[in-house]
Parts: sequence; structure tokens; C-alpha cells
Amino acid sequence: METKVVLDTLWVVLAAILVFFMNLGFALVESGFARSKNTVNILSKNFIVFAISSLGFLTIGWGLMFGDGNAFVGLKGLFFAAGPDNSPSVGEAYQGVYSAISWAGVPLWTKFFFQLVFCGTAATIVSGAVAERIKYLSFIVFSFLLTMFIYPVVGHWIWGGGWLSQLGFLDFAGDTVVHSIGGWAALAGALVLGPRYGKYGKNGEIHPIPGHSLGLATIGVFVLWLGWFGFNPGSTMAADPVAISHILVTTNTAAVTGLLASTVTSWLIIGKPDLGMSINGCLAGLVAITGGCAFVSVGSSVIIGAISGFLVVVAVIFFDKVKIDDPVGAIAVHLVNGIFGTLAIGLFAQDGIAGIATENGLFFGGGFSLLLKQLIGVIAAGAFVFPASLLCWFLIKKTMGLRVSLNEEIIGLDLFEHGNTAYPEFITHKPIYSISLLKSDKEDGAA
Amino acid sequence: METKVVLDTLWVVLAAILVFFMNLGFALVESGFARSKNTVNILSKNFIVFAISSLGFLTIGWGLMFGDGNAFVGLKGLFFAAGPDNSPSVGEAYQGVYSAISWAGVPLWTKFFFQLVFCGTAATIVSGAVAERIKYLSFIVFSFLLTMFIYPVVGHWIWGGGWLSQLGFLDFAGDTVVHSIGGWAALAGALVLGPRYGKYGKNGEIHPIPGHSLGLATIGVFVLWLGWFGFNPGSTMAADPVAISHILVTTNTAAVTGLLASTVTSWLIIGKPDLGMSINGCLAGLVAITGGCAFVSVGSSVIIGAISGFLVVVAVIFFDKVKIDDPVGAIAVHLVNGIFGTLAIGLFAQDGIAGIATENGLFFGGGFSLLLKQLIGVIAAGAFVFPASLLCWFLIKKTMGLRVSLNEEIIGLDLFEHGNTAYPEFITHKPIYSISLLKSDKEDGAA
Amino acid sequence: METKVVLDTLWVVLAAILVFFMNLGFALVESGFARSKNTVNILSKNFIVFAISSLGFLTIGWGLMFGDGNAFVGLKGLFFAAGPDNSPSVGEAYQGVYSAISWAGVPLWTKFFFQLVFCGTAATIVSGAVAERIKYLSFIVFSFLLTMFIYPVVGHWIWGGGWLSQLGFLDFAGDTVVHSIGGWAALAGALVLGPRYGKYGKNGEIHPIPGHSLGLATIGVFVLWLGWFGFNPGSTMAADPVAISHILVTTNTAAVTGLLASTVTSWLIIGKPDLGMSINGCLAGLVAITGGCAFVSVGSSVIIGAISGFLVVVAVIFFDKVKIDDPVGAIAVHLVNGIFGTLAIGLFAQDGIAGIATENGLFFGGGFSLLLKQLIGVIAAGAFVFPASLLCWFLIKKTMGLRVSLNEEIIGLDLFEHGNTAYPEFITHKPIYSISLLKSDKEDGAA
Repeated sequence: METKVVLDTLWVVLAAILVFFMNLGFALVESGFARSKNTVNILSKNFIVFAISSLGFLTIGWGLMFGDGNAFVGLKGLFFAAGPDNSPSVGEAYQGVYSAISWAGVPLWTKFFFQLVFCGTAATIVSGAVAERIKYLSFIVFSFLLTMFIYPVVGHWIWGGGWLSQLGFLDFAGDTVVHSIGGWAALAGALVLGPRYGKYGKNGEIHPIPGHSLGLATIGVFVLWLGWFGFNPGSTMAADPVAISHILVTTNTAAVTGLLASTVTSWLIIGKPDLGMSINGCLAGLVAITGGCAFVSVGSSVIIGAISGFLVVVAVIFFDKVKIDDPVGAIAVHLVNGIFGTLAIGLFAQDGIAGIATENGLFFGGGFSLLLKQLIGVIAAGAFVFPASLLCWFLIKKTMGLRVSLNEEIIGLDLFEHGNTAYPEFITHKPIYSISLLKSDKEDGAA
Repeated sequence: METKVVLDTLWVVLAAILVFFMNLGFALVESGFARSKNTVNILSKNFIVFAISSLGFLTIGWGLMFGDGNAFVGLKGLFFAAGPDNSPSVGEAYQGVYSAISWAGVPLWTKFFFQLVFCGTAATIVSGAVAERIKYLSFIVFSFLLTMFIYPVVGHWIWGGGWLSQLGFLDFAGDTVVHSIGGWAALAGALVLGPRYGKYGKNGEIHPIPGHSLGLATIGVFVLWLGWFGFNPGSTMAADPVAISHILVTTNTAAVTGLLASTVTSWLIIGKPDLGMSINGCLAGLVAITGGCAFVSVGSSVIIGAISGFLVVVAVIFFDKVKIDDPVGAIAVHLVNGIFGTLAIGLFAQDGIAGIATENGLFFGGGFSLLLKQLIGVIAAGAFVFPASLLCWFLIKKTMGLRVSLNEEIIGLDLFEHGNTAYPEFITHKPIYSISLLKSDKEDGAA
Repeated sequence: METKVVLDTLWVVLAAILVFFMNLGFALVESGFARSKNTVNILSKNFIVFAISSLGFLTIGWGLMFGDGNAFVGLKGLFFAAGPDNSPSVGEAYQGVYSAISWAGVPLWTKFFFQLVFCGTAATIVSGAVAERIKYLSFIVFSFLLTMFIYPVVGHWIWGGGWLSQLGFLDFAGDTVVHSIGGWAALAGALVLGPRYGKYGKNGEIHPIPGHSLGLATIGVFVLWLGWFGFNPGSTMAADPVAISHILVTTNTAAVTGLLASTVTSWLIIGKPDLGMSINGCLAGLVAITGGCAFVSVGSSVIIGAISGFLVVVAVIFFDKVKIDDPVGAIAVHLVNGIFGTLAIGLFAQDGIAGIATENGLFFGGGFSLLLKQLIGVIAAGAFVFPASLLCWFLIKKTMGLRVSLNEEIIGLDLFEHGNTAYPEFITHKPIYSISLLKSDKEDGAA
């Protein structure tokens, strides 16, 4: 086989494997940030969600996203990625029904797997925001709907040859496709579910609920950082040395300045360098650079990361103030910075900076043209995903129920939903906040 | 150097590194599924076992397995992989004593390291089944014997040009070579050791012994899933885009349906979706597809995985019923599904499905021919490995002793064998089952 | 682009990603070996240190190390890796100011990132030795100075075309550049800080302070072992099949014999196979082979690893005897074995053993020539790094302070420095040693 095909396949396969590993990262960040009584539940959710995504994306998601069709949805080769396709042939030589991704010169199953791990990431983002109160089976059903329908449709608009891609909207590795979609779905879920029992007092005060293991959370963020080196540079879907090298460094730099900015911001606001904020700042930087990693300079990535680190702290505080309870900060990380990162392309993009032709952003002489397109994409994604997710969450709530009982929530989801506990031998105490709240705040809490 | 050699070497090296990482996966699954009082012991065993395997396979294992010889054992270049060999030359150009693996166009040390990590996997499988009661040094001695002699001999039959390979027996990535061998050795060990104290009551009742950290176990299964993307696609031992892509997806799909099937099965039987069963179902799917990953379609991998997920739940229950105590379910995962996966090739194989020529299985017009060969291989491996392992375990028992004292087992192996504990600062309680059993069941337990 | 550039870039990028992951390994080994009350602090340090290194190395470190200049320091293209450079052009075709690394045919940002992860490793080594008593911000400032100035200067001598490289000093993957530099800086820090409160009694007795989680420490060592397969084979900075294959096996073999030798040594001395010693023995073997992995035979790597495993146990005991308190054994692992590994090249080197031309060592007919050069390098690195580090530590101590208050140290750094704890739900007890010492030894401890 042609050497280029071999090289491209090796790179895309290895990058996909790194992205797959991000499932572990999410599982650990989320379980570390939640309480020990819900650990089995969170681990179970994050473990099964990739299985659900795999099924959903295989059965119909891939076809809806990459099948030839109209500007809104794929229509050919819909089921089981089984349409005609002569990959790794490209360009004129390509014959098949997945034209939108025919530019990638790798075998079909490698394209499928690479796209699957991205779809799985969007689904696992939701998990954190709805943690500690959602029914296990209800989460599974939503994940299936998200990865079968919602994600692939917007994905078709942007990466599948649909109307946003025709408009010139740019999203290199998925700031909108992956992070905003996951973020909008998470926001809808958090709203429909309501806050965890005891999180907000009746006089509007906020009771922080500390996570049970910062060790797990820290392992998680390192694994995610690692996985992002597949996520962003791998989105070349080709072994392009210059682009890969550039993206590797913009990705890392934004992670670094996001981490530092969130640490400094929390230090100034809270008075201490909070490890949880450092973790979310690092993730915010990684999210914010995802869309533009191949379009902006290393210098710009310094700035984008720093802004995201500041943004995430402010956003976490904001969502708490408006009583949207997100146990791990997923909405602040993925939705807020997914939007910011998408718009940042319109500001910082530079044609050919990593050897890839593109439009210039506002700060580099391109005027408002690109920024406007990015804004349209941001709005379009939200205008579709948020109501569609709301609808799914409501349907689930009305049919099978969405939230566990108050009793189950207080005792812990592990025992009720799964019949065991994560740490049966260790003696734990109920954190003070929940005991003290049992009487005074019992009118608050579960919706 | 020729580009193809470079490509193949990069791929095989990176795949081998992923497989190496599975040692961490096994260490975590096993320690998570065991009790905190034995954690240091289990971590120590899983840490040192790869060192022992490395020594055993370097000194003589590699030579026995891949050295030129007769149908049963390698005889040339036996020691320290030091026989003449002009790798990466292949085919007619190859000159050396490791002909059976001369088809792989990579340097000798890459071949060695790739095969070493497979050998190490077989050895680490045993560790889980004999956990919480075996002497540290006795386990080390058995691992040395397994990786020096038992594994390489069967390996020679199948991958070293021996009689099973001549017969046409198929085992792409080691369902029999790695998983069944490890599984048979584990079964022998569990039988000779007897169950853990307190596991089975005198009236035949089973006392479940929950693991001490489902967090560790879950990290472990993600690491193993990751490693399997090296294990199966890497077994091409060449950078073959079509085969790698295909294997990546069959491997993932079987993991996914194994996970889902075991979750559903346990939900139906136990009434709850048990995380431990989900973990073992995922591993069962990965094991079951290991042998046929390059020979079966993605559709078939859906079925194979699903069956394996059901099988592993039934097998775990079965082994408990016949009082074979396997703390982590290693025998149900690796032996049962190693056998099933080997036979499944005889049912589902399709010539050229991943670009590799092979025989068709029963369901695809090949009749019983391949299935019969697979059955012969399954029986042959068991007929050699099981008694050979029994012999080794017995010899160790008679000479240096195999099982720790009852007192040590109750207090925990960490203090007695290693002089420390894994969690010296955390307050734990002895789980109820062991306290309640101290009087009523003291005639049971240690052999 | 030329196939060789693509191949080399893929390999170097993937190796760099593996080395990046070592940050997680260090975080886990160090937090596992320390007490739960300081876990957030250690995780925070090991998380932010790579961010600090990234900034320091980007702003000026890279330029000082690889910029064209004199024998002692780089002077051109100093800031932000922004000097002229036409990588991946090599040899005659290269035009730019980073000539010393122009032999590597990969894009500039890949060179930068690969070298950055090495620089980050040196900085993270320091973290362990100063753990459990250093102020968070003071550690950050030292790391910044180390990665901006100290590391790049010695790096320039050895890898940046400076006087040691001109002399013929050999250090393939950084035994002196990374491990000794980190080790000397760690030693200086441990000396200036003084031992942890309660570690040494007033009558000279040593109170061992066990780590709070051997599970975390063991995960850490597996991650480091994995990362070293990028660290050493990646230092080819080219996809050279023969060299990579060779280095893979020498690296693994030294890890294995280091692990086994330290286990046996501790078994003989302490009477038990200590998991902590096994972990440090494995790391010692990996450190000791780092410098010579491409210059010595697999047989020699067996010996080098075994010696290092013995050395590390003796060194840990020695440093305790002279009351240099290093909570994780970083000095024994990285400094002692960094020096030993550097000298071992002078003993065991064999010209062309991995296809790379070099001088022969003393044991292979080369006489004392190479050994002498290695000795000069060892002395020069120590003579610069140790006093420079001492100066930095002293300046920090005099300006912003270096050590937390005794009260903070006893209660734990997590609460005072970071405002939270790692395990808020688990009930722990203060280990006996600290309670019993509160009265009798209060004149000891904090400086």
C-alpha cells in the first residue's frame, strides 16, 4: 500500500487511541469531584457511556453525520457504516457515500473509530453535570439519543459537508462539534434535574460540596491532557509534520496558561490556590484551543489559554450564583470555553500559520467576516442542541423518570442503583454540610 | 533503511508499549477487587511479575518458542535470544535460527520485546486467581517456570512453527496462546491453593468478599482496554492499514457488547447493574475477540462480544458454585472466554475480511474443518498446560510451601509478607463477613 | 513532505507525549510516598510544575540551551524559540540559529516540545525531595529559575554544542542533563530546608514516615516505566529501527534487574521484600540506563540495572543516616544513579552496538579515555548545579521564605496552603510517630 496511507493510518489510529483514553480521564475527574457515596454510580456511567456511544454511532450516528445527503443531515449509507466506500482512496479516485470525509486517506474503519471517540467525548461531558442525582438507566437512554441523533446532526453541519461548513465556519478539532454540544446537553440536563439536595440553602446561600478524592481528579486531568495530544494534533487526520508540531505546542501552551490563569484567579478571589480550579483551568485552556489549534500562533495560544483560565473561574462562580448545580464544572469548562474557543478563531486566526490555508481573524487583518461566521455557528449549535436536549430530558422524565428519590440521593446512589459501595472497608463520615442541612434546609433540594 | 521496515518497527514498538501498560491494568483490577489488607501484596506481585517474565523469556523462553526445532519445541538459539539472525530481513533473504517469526520485517529486539509483553500478560493473569492467600516467593517461582517453559512450549506449537500451526489452527493475537494458557495455570493454582478462608460456609453457602476499591478496578479496566488496542491490532506485526483499522473496530465492538451484555445479564440475575460484572464483561469481550479479531467481521464481533458478556457472568457464578475461589474472576474471563474465542474463529471466520487470507468458519460456508482444528488446539493447550501447571504448583507446595498461614491470611498478607500496609493512615473496619465467620466456620477455609 | 521527515516527526511526537505522561507518574509516586495531609499540596506542585517549566523553557530556556553561542551558553534566538530556523532541513541545508540540534530532521516545534518534556522532568524530580515542608509559591519560583537558567546552561554544555559535547562526553537520553541536574537541585533544596519535623530524633534515631498510599505510588511507577519507553528510545529523535529496538530492550532490562536487585537487597537487609524499595529500584535501573541505553549491550544493561538496584537501597539508608531527609528517595534514585549511569557509559560503552558510532568504554578495550570524560562531566555538572541551586534556594529563603511554619507542617500543608484536603470524607488517624514525638522531640525538626 502507498506509504502515505500507511503513515496517515498509523497517526490517526494512535491519536484515536489517545482520545479513547480520555474516557478514563473524565471518569476520574468526575468521580474525584463527587462524593464517595456516588462513586460506583459515576464510574459505572463513565464506563458504560463509551459503550452506548459506540453502539449509537455505529448503528446510525456515523451515517447521519458523514453520509451524503443535504445541508442538514446525511442520508446515504445510514446504517452500520455499511454504505459503499473505497477508502483510503481520496479526491477524484474516491467512490462512495461518505464524501465529506473522503479527503482523509485512511481506511473507512479508521475514520469511523477516530470519529467515534470524538462522539464518545461529547457524551461523557454530560455525565459530570448531571452527576449525583440522575438515574443510571435514564442517563444511558439520553446518551444513546445524543450520540445517535443530536451529535451527528450538528456534526453533519460542520464536518459532514453541511451548511455551516459551506458557510466557512471553522472548527478544527471540535470546540463546537464536541465541547459545545456536550456542554449544551449538560446544561439542559442540569436545568431539568435541578440542583443536588443541600447545595443551595433557602436563603440563597451556597454550600460547597467538596469532592471525595483530589487524587483521582488529578490523575484524571493528566490523562485528559495526554489524550488531548491525540484529540487536537490527530484532527489533521494525516501525518502532516508541520501541522502536528504546531498543534502540539499551541495545545500545550493553552493548557499551561489556562492552568496558571485559573490558579492565579482563584488565589486572588478565594485567597488560596485551589487545586480544583487549577484542574478546571487546565481543561478550560485545552477546550478553548481545540477549535483554533491549527489556525492560531503559539503566541495567540498563550492569550487564549489565559483568558479561558480566567473565564472558567468566573463561570463556575456564576453558575453557582444562578443555582445551576454542576458538580464538576463541566458547563463552565466545556460550554463556556467551547463557545469562547470557537469565537477566538474569529479573532486570532492567521492564514497558513500551521501550513493550513484559512481566513484571517479580526486581530490579523481579516475584519469581522470570520468572526461573524463563528458567531453564527455558535448560535446555530445552541439553538438546535439545547432545545433538542431539553426535549429528550423531558421525555425521559415523563416516561421513565430522571431523578432518584431524595432518600436515595441522601444515602447515596451506589447502594440503591448498583447495590454496592466503592470503598466498603474504609470508614467515612457524612460531610458536615449534609448533616447540618438535614433539618434546616429540608424544603430545598430535589425538584 | 527501507521505509517499510521503519513503518513496521514504529507500529510494533508502539503497540508493544501499549501492551506493556496492561501490567498496570491487571495490577489495578486485581488490587481493586481484593481487600485492603492484601493490597501491598497484590501490587508487589503484579509489579515484579513482569520483571520475572522478562528474565524468564530472555534467558530461555524466547528460544524455546521461536527457535528452529521440531514440532514441539525450539532447539536453536535457545539462550538470551542470541542465535544468528539477520532481521529485519524477511523471506528468502532471512538467515537465522528464528525462522518462524522471520515473516515480521522488524529488528530482532523489537520482535523479542513484542513477544515478551505477551508472555508477561499470560503470567500476570495467574496472579488474580491465586490472590489473597499465596506466598509471595512461591508466586514468583511459579511465574518463572510458566514464562520459561510452559508458555513458550505451547507458544511454539502455535506461533513458533510447531504442530498446531502446521495443522492450520488459528489464533491471531493469542486467545489460546496468552489467555487460555494463563487461565489454565490460574485454574490449577486456584485448585491447589483452595479457597480463601471464609469464602464458602460449611453448609455450602457462598460469602461474597467485596473488593476494597472499585475506583482502582475501574482505572484498571480502562488501562486494559487501551492496552488491547496494542495487543490485537499490533499482532499484525506490520503497519498494515486495512488490517489495523479492521481489528481496531472488531476489538472495540466486542468490548462494548461484552460490557453491555454482562451488565444486562447481571441486572436480570442480581437485580442491579453490578460494576464488577460490567468490568469483567468488558474484559471477556476483549478476550473473546483476541483470537479472531482479524478473521471475523464487525458484525460478528458484535455477537462474539455479547456472548462473552453473558458467558462470563454465568462462569463466575458457576465457579463459585463448585467452590473454586477466584477473587477477581480471572478464570471466567481468560480461560472460559479464551476457549470460547478460539472456537468462535471456527464459527465466524471469513476469508479476507481484513485483507488476510484464512479459512472460512462454519457459519460462512467453511463447514466443520476449521472448527475441528480449533477444538484440537483448545484441547491440546489444556491437556499440556493444566497438568504441567498442577505439577509446578505441587512441587512448589511440597518444597517451599504455597499458602500463607491461616493467621496471616486473616490479618492480611501485607503485614506478614511485606512488613507494611497500603493505607496506614486510613481507618478501616474488618468487613462483617470475616468477623462473623471466625467462630462458626473455622473448620472451613485454608487447606 | 519527505517520508523520512514524516516518520521522524511521528516517532518524536509520540515519544514526547509518553514523556509528558511521566508528570503523572512523578505526581503519583510522590503523593503516594507522602502523608495524606500533604496530598493536595504535592499533587498541586506536580501539576503546576510542568506549566512553569513550559513557560520558563519557552521564554528563554530553549534559547539558552540550543541557540548558537559560545561553549557555555546559547546567545542567538534566545526568546520564545523565535530565532530564524528552517527545520526540518538538516546538514548543509540547515539555516538557522539552533545548529546544535539541526541534526534532527523534524519541525522546530517538535524539537521544542521534545526538549521541553525533558526539562519538565528535571524540574519535577526536585518536587519529591522537598515535599511536605516547602511553601507552594517558593517551589514555583525555584522551578522557574531551574528551567529558565540552570537546566538550559548545563544542557547547552552537553546537548547544545557546548564544551562537554566538544570534549566527547556522552549522555544519550539525559543521565546527567536531566537526572543529575534534577538530583543536585533536589539535594540543595533538601539541605537548605532541613528534615521534616519528627523525622530524626534527638538521639540520632530515625523515625520512618510511611507514605499514605502504596496504590498511588505503584500506579506512578508503572506510568514512569511506560514514559521511559518514550524517554530513552525517543532520544534517537529519528525513526531508527535498529537503535529504537535496542534501546527499548536495554531500558526494560535495566528496569527489571534494578527492581529485582533492590527487592533482594531490601529483603536481605530489612527481612521483607519492601514494595517502596522495589519501586525505587525499578526507577534506579531506568535512571542508570538512561545515559548509556544506546551505547551498551543488553548484557551490560543487566549488570547496570542490578548495580543500580543495590545502590539505591544503600543510598536511601545513607542519606537517612546523614539526616538528609528526602521523603521519596529522589536523591538516591536520580542523583546517585544519574552519576552512576553516566560513569557506567565509560565502563560499558561499545562502538556501534545499536548502530551508533561511539567510543569504547574501559571494559571493552577503550581504556580510561571515555571514563575520564564522563567523570569530568559528572563533576562539572555538580560543580555548577549544586552551588547555583543553593544560591537560588537561599535567595528564596531570605526574600519570600522557603519553609512553612511548624504548626502548618504538623497540621498539614493542604489546609494552610490550599484551603482543602484530599480526602475530606475518609477518617484518618495521625500516625503514631508524630503524636509520640510532639513532646519528647520538639527541639528537633523544622529549621
